[in-house]
Amino acid sequence: MNINLITKFIRELYKSNDFIPLHAPTFGGNEKKYVLETIDSTFVSSVGKFVDQFEKEIELFTGSNKAIATSNGTAALHAALHVSGVQKGDLVITQALTFVATGNVIHHMGASPIFLDVSKKSLGLCPLAVSKFLHKFAAIDQDGAFHKKTGQRIKAIVPMHTFGHPVELDELIAICEEWKLTLIEDAAESLGSLYKGRHTGTLGDFGALSFNGNKIITTGGGGAILTKSKYLATRALKLTTTSKVSHKWEYIHDELGYNYRMPNLNSALGLAQLEKINIFLRLKKKLFKKYSFILKNIDDVKLVSQPKFSKSNFWLQTIVIKKNSKKIRDRFLLKMHKNRIFARPVWNLLHKQKHLKNYPKMNLSTAESLKYRIINLPSSPYLGK
Amino acid sequence: MNINLITKFIRELYKSNDFIPLHAPTFGGNEKKYVLETIDSTFVSSVGKFVDQFEKEIELFTGSNKAIATSNGTAALHAALHVSGVQKGDLVITQALTFVATGNVIHHMGASPIFLDVSKKSLGLCPLAVSKFLHKFAAIDQDGAFHKKTGQRIKAIVPMHTFGHPVELDELIAICEEWKLTLIEDAAESLGSLYKGRHTGTLGDFGALSFNGNKIITTGGGGAILTKSKYLATRALKLTTTSKVSHKWEYIHDELGYNYRMPNLNSALGLAQLEKINIFLRLKKKLFKKYSFILKNIDDVKLVSQPKFSKSNFWLQTIVIKKNSKKIRDRFLLKMHKNRIFARPVWNLLHKQKHLKNYPKMNLSTAESLKYRIINLPSSPYLGK
Repeated sequence: MNINLITKFIRELYKSNDFIPLHAPTFGGNEKKYVLETIDSTFVSSVGKFVDQFEKEIELFTGSNKAIATSNGTAALHAALHVSGVQKGDLVITQALTFVATGNVIHHMGASPIFLDVSKKSLGLCPLAVSKFLHKFAAIDQDGAFHKKTGQRIKAIVPMHTFGHPVELDELIAICEEWKLTLIEDAAESLGSLYKGRHTGTLGDFGALSFNGNKIITTGGGGAILTKSKYLATRALKLTTTSKVSHKWEYIHDELGYNYRMPNLNSALGLAQLEKINIFLRLKKKLFKKYSFILKNIDDVKLVSQPKFSKSNFWLQTIVIKKNSKKIRDRFLLKMHKNRIFARPVWNLLHKQKHLKNYPKMNLSTAESLKYRIINLPSSPYLGK
Repeated sequence: MNINLITKFIRELYKSNDFIPLHAPTFGGNEKKYVLETIDSTFVSSVGKFVDQFEKEIELFTGSNKAIATSNGTAALHAALHVSGVQKGDLVITQALTFVATGNVIHHMGASPIFLDVSKKSLGLCPLAVSKFLHKFAAIDQDGAFHKKTGQRIKAIVPMHTFGHPVELDELIAICEEWKLTLIEDAAESLGSLYKGRHTGTLGDFGALSFNGNKIITTGGGGAILTKSKYLATRALKLTTTSKVSHKWEYIHDELGYNYRMPNLNSALGLAQLEKINIFLRLKKKLFKKYSFILKNIDDVKLVSQPKFSKSNFWLQTIVIKKNSKKIRDRFLLKMHKNRIFARPVWNLLHKQKHLKNYPKMNLSTAESLKYRIINLPSSPYLGK
């Protein structure tokens, strides 16, 4: 593998001798104007016109019936799980290859994640693996699916659209219908990604977006819950505002709640960012093409493209190295690191993280076969200064 | 009770015919400058120089060894409980008269709150009530205190400095020493309040601050963990950043973590606010004196002042009505409401909130005797336009 060529290409691409980050945001629109407006209005906290407007624009852009802005993507996913009825002791199906938050929120609910394999097509949850698990271990009664051995209720499937590339949703939706499961899309990385023309996060019962600093648009820290159901949206909104019952003055909270709403200050930034998202998406696609052009001549490395059924946001440019070798990978990363280019490996698989390793898992051969092969390369949309 | 006189006084005080809020923030300093600087730097998310500077200035202002900025006060309190070693099934002592978040975080830990009475002196946790409970129900062994009947470990005491007025800390500290309990001060409302010359939140093992929109300074949404121990601060910092182990590129999370850090964007606002806090504190004290002057002539109403041992931030101006009558209170609130003046009652007591009502409680006669008597009046520091 010709690391020097890749390094040289990235340096030329970003026309920079400085440190090259993984994904820096770009603020060229109304960010300053809107943020200053929140300060002038004094409404910087969780109530304000930018929260409403940002939610409305997220709804328009994604085609979701309802969006509820939250303090971050983890909070959005946690609240979605809560509203979907996942309870203590339940089983929730997810993928082993994902960011730790996907597993953490299931754990936070007192539920048990079960880690399944990813699909080679999408790098996200493999429908075949889900189907196999359910046919082997699950049965169904009037209350839904349950684990035949442990008796645990199987409540939901949480696929994650890895690096922005959509998972095989039709197949997962069919499984959810067959087994009466809730589909919660972890769309933290896939704002702007479409599955057969529809926005990721809107095909399942819930979607969870993230607007962290390295995402395609940012609110500083932030996220959003997407849902089709106006009733569930109302529930989610209440839940994220400490479950306070609407009243002129009384402080009654009629169930457990969270302090998870996005402040108006952050929403103002997000609204300005969202106005530019189509430009960002075009630039990301262009960046992918540039990487494709140079990488097609490099042996032992394959650039990850969008699955056929999808239009990806190409959030993170990703290569897969031929050999699954920690040594080769670390040599690559060290070289990048020394060259002050931020490249990163895939997350440590969830069933290997210390606090999650005792949860159940199935065959994870694809995830395991990828664990030292995936590297994310610098993916900021704007090139040069 | 002469409600008309109070209404008239508040209208004159704020020189306004518009809606008068409970507590509006004031942005007259470097807020815009600093916030724009984060946008120019592109560092708007959880890493950035304003996060570091804000934490440093919070340390200097409070005299705390370490401060860790979080996404809100609930997150700060939750993380403090986690780091202090509270575990599933443990008992945590707190007061019945507090905002719902104090109880929620204990519940989030899988621990059980036990609701005790408040002190007439402070409106916060009553040391006598704590002592009585422990002498009646607790014993101590080499691992600390436990409940003699249930066997549950009693781990921590969480007093809340109600409306900014400090609780009787010396007495609570003595109890914690005697019973080997961790003291976690819920200082969400008491930034700027001193107990015998020392800042609230720094006398216990942990303190939790809030910078919500209605607090004495605001970051939009935000909070901070205070702690004396550099070791525990390092633990808290790691815990609030998904427990990620520091590494050049690996994504290893060696325990359960949270996504609880404050973004740089919000810290920038907070830093500018903190530069002005001494002015805000002076204005709040002045406001208290104005309320005192007018209210001393009104029968059946007493203005809450700072406990003798303290210097309060006078966050919320608070009256206590003589009679504990929902009817009288609601008549007052309705009148205020109709006059577009935001006045609010005290929170519904925690043992009456639906999701917390099955937790244990002791005698709550003081809290119960206050439940319809407390009203918070408009407390914005700046008067007039």
